[in-house]
Amino acid sequence: MQQDTINALLVKLARRGLCVVRLKGGDPAVFGRMGEELAYLQAHGVETEVIPGVTAACAASAQFQFPLTHRSSARRVVFTTARIEDGALVGDWRLAADPQATAAIYMGGAHAHLIAKHLMDAGRPGSTPAVVVENAGREDAKLERETLASLSERGPTRKSGPVLIIVGAVGAMAQDARVLVHERTPLRAAGTR
Amino acid sequence: MQQDTINALLVKLARRGLCVVRLKGGDPAVFGRMGEELAYLQAHGVETEVIPGVTAACAASAQFQFPLTHRSSARRVVFTTARIEDGALVGDWRLAADPQATAAIYMGGAHAHLIAKHLMDAGRPGSTPAVVVENAGREDAKLERETLASLSERGPTRKSGPVLIIVGAVGAMAQDARVLVHERTPLRAAGTR
Repeated sequence: MQQDTINALLVKLARRGLCVVRLKGGDPAVFGRMGEELAYLQAHGVETEVIPGVTAACAASAQFQFPLTHRSSARRVVFTTARIEDGALVGDWRLAADPQATAAIYMGGAHAHLIAKHLMDAGRPGSTPAVVVENAGREDAKLERETLASLSERGPTRKSGPVLIIVGAVGAMAQDARVLVHERTPLRAAGTR
Repeated sequence: MQQDTINALLVKLARRGLCVVRLKGGDPAVFGRMGEELAYLQAHGVETEVIPGVTAACAASAQFQFPLTHRSSARRVVFTTARIEDGALVGDWRLAADPQATAAIYMGGAHAHLIAKHLMDAGRPGSTPAVVVENAGREDAKLERETLASLSERGPTRKSGPVLIIVGAVGAMAQDARVLVHERTPLRAAGTR
């Protein structure tokens, strides 16, 4: 469904007096078109309310137990996307090249090798950990451990689910074990039963 | 309580067979010492599980209805802190100076004027919106609209609660109206009763 169609539908349903929920994955403020939808709704006199969510980078971090910031080695975290024009990566990548920044690249699956090359060209060592997370936050989430060097050699990867790439020292802390709270009871979690 | 004391307490309680909850505000992966605590617990053989949360920037964004990324004007968002050594701001601020990045500066209250000056020195226009949010995510959250220029002239501000500063074009979209879902019923929210 096109964005224009979604906007028009939201207004149409709200004008019937309905309480309309526009449900999104992750957090609506991070690559979620929240600004565009709110501007349209406000311009059409529809009262709005935003419920925050867990953005994919935080979801992946929790599932695979690595932080996004870490004292001394990851003082900042940047969430960005990979924009490709005419087959090349465009945009300002200085922030992702900062050696003390964790870079979380949303929707980067198809261009992972280009992103890795770009970051190495910008000065990040080829040995920098780069984890590739498919379906972050879902039960079937998968994590692959790479480095910028290995990722740059992989070529384009096609995954069925959305892919998030997290680059930086924190990637080395990622655990294989993925524990989901709803799969377990507190007592089993504590190991006493 | 010191971090060492917290770590020791977590292990001590876990060894009694208890399911121990270390509760934090926001998201544990973002400036939450998650890495240090997990490393300590894992080194002491304590099985761990992480539940993600809503980080302060996303909470503020939802309460005051402005996005953190926005098509064409805010292609990236960076979460950083303000580190002060000998009265001066230290660290790499290139990423926050990127004109297409939203910068969310955590725990920046006491040094807001220094941060604003630093960003202007790094090339961001004095007219760039800068919103100062106190107690993001809480019922008593407050937002002040500034620009980098006005913020730089304010001098040190002392707030009672934690302060988040969000710099970038998206700040201009912030709404005064702060609507909390638990204060209202769906029917009242829809305006039909």
